Amino acid sequence: MHRERFYTLSASCPDRVGIVARVSGFISAHQGWILETAFHSEQIDDGGGPGQYFMRIEIRADSLPFMLSELRERFAPIAEEFEMEWKITDSAVRKRVVILVSQQEHCLYDLLARWKSRELDIEIPCVISNHDTFRGFVEWHGIPFHHVPVSADGRASAYKEMRRIFEEARGDVMVLARYMQILPPDLCEGYPGRIINIHHSFLPSFVGARPYHQAWVKGVKLIGATCHYVTAELDQGPIIEQDVIRIDHTDTVGDMVRYGKDIEKAVLARGLRYHLEDRVLVYGNKTVVFR
Amino acid sequence: MHRERFYTLSASCPDRVGIVARVSGFISAHQGWILETAFHSEQIDDGGGPGQYFMRIEIRADSLPFMLSELRERFAPIAEEFEMEWKITDSAVRKRVVILVSQQEHCLYDLLARWKSRELDIEIPCVISNHDTFRGFVEWHGIPFHHVPVSADGRASAYKEMRRIFEEARGDVMVLARYMQILPPDLCEGYPGRIINIHHSFLPSFVGARPYHQAWVKGVKLIGATCHYVTAELDQGPIIEQDVIRIDHTDTVGDMVRYGKDIEKAVLARGLRYHLEDRVLVYGNKTVVFR
Amino acid sequence: MHRERFYTLSASCPDRVGIVARVSGFISAHQGWILETAFHSEQIDDGGGPGQYFMRIEIRADSLPFMLSELRERFAPIAEEFEMEWKITDSAVRKRVVILVSQQEHCLYDLLARWKSRELDIEIPCVISNHDTFRGFVEWHGIPFHHVPVSADGRASAYKEMRRIFEEARGDVMVLARYMQILPPDLCEGYPGRIINIHHSFLPSFVGARPYHQAWVKGVKLIGATCHYVTAELDQGPIIEQDVIRIDHTDTVGDMVRYGKDIEKAVLARGLRYHLEDRVLVYGNKTVVFR
Amino acid sequence: MHRERFYTLSASCPDRVGIVARVSGFISAHQGWILETAFHSEQIDDGGGPGQYFMRIEIRADSLPFMLSELRERFAPIAEEFEMEWKITDSAVRKRVVILVSQQEHCLYDLLARWKSRELDIEIPCVISNHDTFRGFVEWHGIPFHHVPVSADGRASAYKEMRRIFEEARGDVMVLARYMQILPPDLCEGYPGRIINIHHSFLPSFVGARPYHQAWVKGVKLIGATCHYVTAELDQGPIIEQDVIRIDHTDTVGDMVRYGKDIEKAVLARGLRYHLEDRVLVYGNKTVVFR
Repeated sequence: MHRERFYTLSASCPDRVGIVARVSGFISAHQGWILETAFHSEQIDDGGGPGQYFMRIEIRADSLPFMLSELRERFAPIAEEFEMEWKITDSAVRKRVVILVSQQEHCLYDLLARWKSRELDIEIPCVISNHDTFRGFVEWHGIPFHHVPVSADGRASAYKEMRRIFEEARGDVMVLARYMQILPPDLCEGYPGRIINIHHSFLPSFVGARPYHQAWVKGVKLIGATCHYVTAELDQGPIIEQDVIRIDHTDTVGDMVRYGKDIEKAVLARGLRYHLEDRVLVYGNKTVVFR
Repeated sequence: MHRERFYTLSASCPDRVGIVARVSGFISAHQGWILETAFHSEQIDDGGGPGQYFMRIEIRADSLPFMLSELRERFAPIAEEFEMEWKITDSAVRKRVVILVSQQEHCLYDLLARWKSRELDIEIPCVISNHDTFRGFVEWHGIPFHHVPVSADGRASAYKEMRRIFEEARGDVMVLARYMQILPPDLCEGYPGRIINIHHSFLPSFVGARPYHQAWVKGVKLIGATCHYVTAELDQGPIIEQDVIRIDHTDTVGDMVRYGKDIEKAVLARGLRYHLEDRVLVYGNKTVVFR
Repeated sequence: MHRERFYTLSASCPDRVGIVARVSGFISAHQGWILETAFHSEQIDDGGGPGQYFMRIEIRADSLPFMLSELRERFAPIAEEFEMEWKITDSAVRKRVVILVSQQEHCLYDLLARWKSRELDIEIPCVISNHDTFRGFVEWHGIPFHHVPVSADGRASAYKEMRRIFEEARGDVMVLARYMQILPPDLCEGYPGRIINIHHSFLPSFVGARPYHQAWVKGVKLIGATCHYVTAELDQGPIIEQDVIRIDHTDTVGDMVRYGKDIEKAVLARGLRYHLEDRVLVYGNKTVVFR
Repeated sequence: MHRERFYTLSASCPDRVGIVARVSGFISAHQGWILETAFHSEQIDDGGGPGQYFMRIEIRADSLPFMLSELRERFAPIAEEFEMEWKITDSAVRKRVVILVSQQEHCLYDLLARWKSRELDIEIPCVISNHDTFRGFVEWHGIPFHHVPVSADGRASAYKEMRRIFEEARGDVMVLARYMQILPPDLCEGYPGRIINIHHSFLPSFVGARPYHQAWVKGVKLIGATCHYVTAELDQGPIIEQDVIRIDHTDTVGDMVRYGKDIEKAVLARGLRYHLEDRVLVYGNKTVVFR
């Protein structure tokens, strides 16, 4: 967490000799001051190929003799040389987070508290809900609230409307803060790596509905929550963050729901932060998270 | 967590043969339906005396043939026989929690979310603060807000005023939700076991000011938070609940403050819940917590 | 953990008024000194019936005016009255634990260290293995070692031999300390609640072979271990204890195996201890664990 | 954890532009294949100076066109240019770990299990103890055992003898595996960053003797263990690793001692591994640990 404005380069490419040297040499040649670096070489499990290389570098903006656009322009040939997937973001540009919520308070209150205290330095252009429950609370914070009911026969139009709102709000990321509806595949596929969900189980255990009830039936001794990117397949997207809490035989399903809320909001907040700080690089159905 | 109305008997007394039999025999004789029981015999460390006995029993209200007042009356002779400190509370009577706050959002938002969703089934008669920052937020929730500034030369009158507000609000418990002022000894002593604080370190490490900074200087690998009853001696009261989170060398003091907030609000919420459900029995400077 | 000799009564029965009173009244009537008690009412999830009641009581042996056999005799009518499944064990009678192991050190060393230091106050009449690897180590401790190879076409006779050894050793419990063979159903069914396994995943995730590899493929952020009773269905028996450890993208399958060992031995040791101290009551496919 | 032979460069120096570029450029120029890298810029808390830079790089030995000695020779000028404290170690050279123990099994069994299974790829040239208790166990493993009694009036000669043994064994690191004696200051100062202790509390809480008893008196809700480098000041050396475990009012001091053992051996094993893999860089009284 730095106070100074900085640029964040995140990239992945096939592993080979000289990647770090080339990238850091480029930065150094322009007197770029590196605040934080992380590199990772993903070794393919069967030991076959050369693996994939991942990196994330924070550079102080004022240490460079040019602006972001020129930085991107000058870096592009290196990226091409190493066949990188890459991007450079600017800490001074707040990401725009659209929150989807149903009728549970805990994640919404938690995210708004973090936003209000500037702990999460984001814009929240709007909140969307299938219920009108939190209109007053959201609007009190000066944030527009959209009530988009999702009826059994109006799902298609509802999701079309949500998509329109998200686009109009120029949203960078959509956060399902215990939004209790399943998004249609085309919506999921339209925003790969840009829709984040919090699922109330330690995936891959207890996919789908009523995971705490499933956990109670199974008699597990810990329950958990999973923050993941949404893909077309339910609860199967790349996992960003997880955590668990201990329970015992005295805990009813209702107790688990209550404990679970604390895990859910904490895991969602951590996962979202990693995403917002460009710390998450998706690779197949897995993630590299440079915490 | 039960839906039915129930009475909670909590008591402690010198350990001896027959306590459980006598108490449970009494309940059984009146067809009392026990929902939850917990007993504990505190063995004195030097192995000398007989130790102290603690108990907590939840009895379904509608299983008894009389009201709470008569239950108390009939139980009194048993309590006297065993020299108990005891009380019986009624789940239908919401406890009145007065929240004290300064300028940090996290605990306040967290407590109000739990109150609004009925997860914490309490009354919040008012919020008191030495700043006016959260007036709008608190009042939006329909809760009275009292701004009681604490100036260097007006401390005595400020705390007198806070005491008056607490009394007028018929407060059962005062919660210091990151209230950044030290309460005067007479106030602490006036409400033993009724003022709950959240301290932002894993006590007994890092008493007093700037504990995260102290932790950074020391280079510990975990930071924590402690929920405790307030006594006249700073950060030394009986500990109700604690927890920690892992940090590493990449974390600045600012990062610790941020992580710490998540621990603080979780530990405060758990500790407060234990207190509200009469699960905490104080013994000397320690607590028995029947989770 | 008590130094004094004590009896442990553990029982379960249909819930109704007066169980605690009747049992504690019986103990008290004989001046029995209770060291530790735990009760639990399992509320059936659909809210239908009266639920099941569980209890565990430790009574100081020297406080009673009769021996264990008479205690059992006198308690039997109460047990019958309440339709209890019950037993009373004696802390002075060490349980006999037969350990099964293959070629991994960690659980074996861990269990023998606990046995040698008397932290686990048990008899180990023998160790059985499908390899001869640990003969010297086990025999150095003065414990008989049986090498029972399990070949593809000699499985039936091998398991018959193991059963014979277990019977001859008068084993109370069989511990699969990373024994890498699947026991045949008839062996599992022959000793219900007496065979304990440690599975190297957080069940129900990653049943069967190579769970760490499965975890790597899935990209989970925590890995775990599960101590459970063995039943005829693979990795599906009642769970006694579980725990997890955090991993990240830098961890290979090999790293997970290494971290996993620490979780495995800790979870196995805790689960085994709960079993040995009669803290585990099985109910359907779940457990009540009175820690 | 890599199978291939590799060199590990670890270094620290004043932070400035171009460190990563210079070092990675050097490696790349010789076609060095980087397996793992970690960099850290320690920001001084008062925001004054430029801070200190830390790095750790693993390079595949067979990717370089020269041997270790030449690698060191060629790197020396760069190290000098950046005023580095540095070293390069070889994964093929096993570190020599001398274990000191008293009368508790748990850490000794744990370390020898890890050594025997090659999880810890080290040499154990000898074990030293102030008791003769573990001679048989240690010698069974083929490891020399030295009994060096420490009597009240023979402390000086005992520690002189231990130092002689350590030197003769060409020890790289001395591990106090619950060695219950306080080393004299001159011994501590003679091997800075080479003596590792496991203290049975979550430091800085509960320095010195009987920490579990101190924890019991204080009534903390978690107990812990701390792995640290030994310095002349008791329990004040740089912390390498820590962990905690939850306790409650039912736990006696004896229970804490038992739980504590599990934390102690796990924390010691992790801390020792970090040290052996050159992942720990000491800076003042703190550590950077590149896990």
